[in-house]
Amino acid sequence: MAEHIVKSFEQELKRLQALITEMGGMVESQVALASRAVIDKDAAAASQAVDADPAVDALEREVEQYVIRLLALRQPLAQDLRHIVAALKITGALERIGDYATNVAKRSLVLDQFALPYTLTGLAHMSRLVQENLKTIIDAIGENDTDKALQVWRSDEVIDEIYNALFRELITYMMEDPRNITPCIHLLFIAKNLERIGDHATNIAELVYYAVRGEPLADIRPKGDSSAYAVVRPPRA
Amino acid sequence: MAEHIVKSFEQELKRLQALITEMGGMVESQVALASRAVIDKDAAAASQAVDADPAVDALEREVEQYVIRLLALRQPLAQDLRHIVAALKITGALERIGDYATNVAKRSLVLDQFALPYTLTGLAHMSRLVQENLKTIIDAIGENDTDKALQVWRSDEVIDEIYNALFRELITYMMEDPRNITPCIHLLFIAKNLERIGDHATNIAELVYYAVRGEPLADIRPKGDSSAYAVVRPPRA
Repeated sequence: MAEHIVKSFEQELKRLQALITEMGGMVESQVALASRAVIDKDAAAASQAVDADPAVDALEREVEQYVIRLLALRQPLAQDLRHIVAALKITGALERIGDYATNVAKRSLVLDQFALPYTLTGLAHMSRLVQENLKTIIDAIGENDTDKALQVWRSDEVIDEIYNALFRELITYMMEDPRNITPCIHLLFIAKNLERIGDHATNIAELVYYAVRGEPLADIRPKGDSSAYAVVRPPRA
Repeated sequence: MAEHIVKSFEQELKRLQALITEMGGMVESQVALASRAVIDKDAAAASQAVDADPAVDALEREVEQYVIRLLALRQPLAQDLRHIVAALKITGALERIGDYATNVAKRSLVLDQFALPYTLTGLAHMSRLVQENLKTIIDAIGENDTDKALQVWRSDEVIDEIYNALFRELITYMMEDPRNITPCIHLLFIAKNLERIGDHATNIAELVYYAVRGEPLADIRPKGDSSAYAVVRPPRA
């Protein structure tokens, strides 16, 4: 009987992990749709990304209820408790990734109304890296893979560097022609949202690492977004 | 003996609540410092806000450890469990409010390098309302006050409206003179950060309400930030 209970608890933990990877898959596809909406000017993809958000929110609530039920009925200890608390925090991070993707998708619809004076190469590159990190970290959740978590944690710095370069680039376009200002501001916020999605992937990496290993990944995280300090002036001010 | 244990658990829950209101007080002061840094061009306040961030992060970790200990040793049920899970989520929201305040403070230092062509009345108004909501929601946490939670939840819409107006106003300044572009972009991100702080106060309101009442506040939340769809064009494009 005791063994039966133990086995069933293991199944419940597996079920929790499955719920989270399912939620991860949903926001992964939301981010892919939102990126396609921006890069390929695909309005249908934008709508799909926005429409997907309520289902992501609903799954977050389902995970939360499941976690509260597990805590109440199973009264887990040590490693199990760590996994369950991490699951609760991961689901919060995934929900916010979904929110950022929705915001990117909405802004893509505004961009469609403007002729952009340049290609979106930098943004496309950034969005590709963010999506790769997101995919890797969702795999890491499903496989309790700390190597993959470390890989994501380390590669966030590159995303931040691209974001910083993009920030300055977009400002120069705005200075060249006031008609570029509105689309470039939306692109700035889109890039910032992608950078935040990358940040949340990094947060999840820390949670996965801690849940599996029982010790924090590190106190100091690579923080590459220096745009808060960026000063760009017109050529002849 | 059993009564002693019960009493001690109540004390532990009080201690958890005290830790969270302490953290709330810290981020409240961080937001006040960051706002003063922007509105009054007070570089010392900016440094204080940035310097406060590690202590906020440390307190978040302390709350988390305390929650995990409570869950493991006390195995709480029903309302207590709800309060503890809410506490964990509130501490996450407070930590992010601290992050946003830090980002505002950093950007204020860039603003000091520019002569702004206008007053910061709108931003000052917005920052005052955000600070009021933050204060009210931290009181609500300490007093389990769902009326105050509701008050915060309802008043977030006004903050969003001011933000939307500010968004458009800042874009027009950028169109008037390319020298305004860099400072106005930082002001845009500052306003966005304040709007996000207001959003997190609203999230906390929902958590307080749920923890105390045992039912969600509502499925539909007033969402007033429509700036993702904003289009502003130069007068003669």
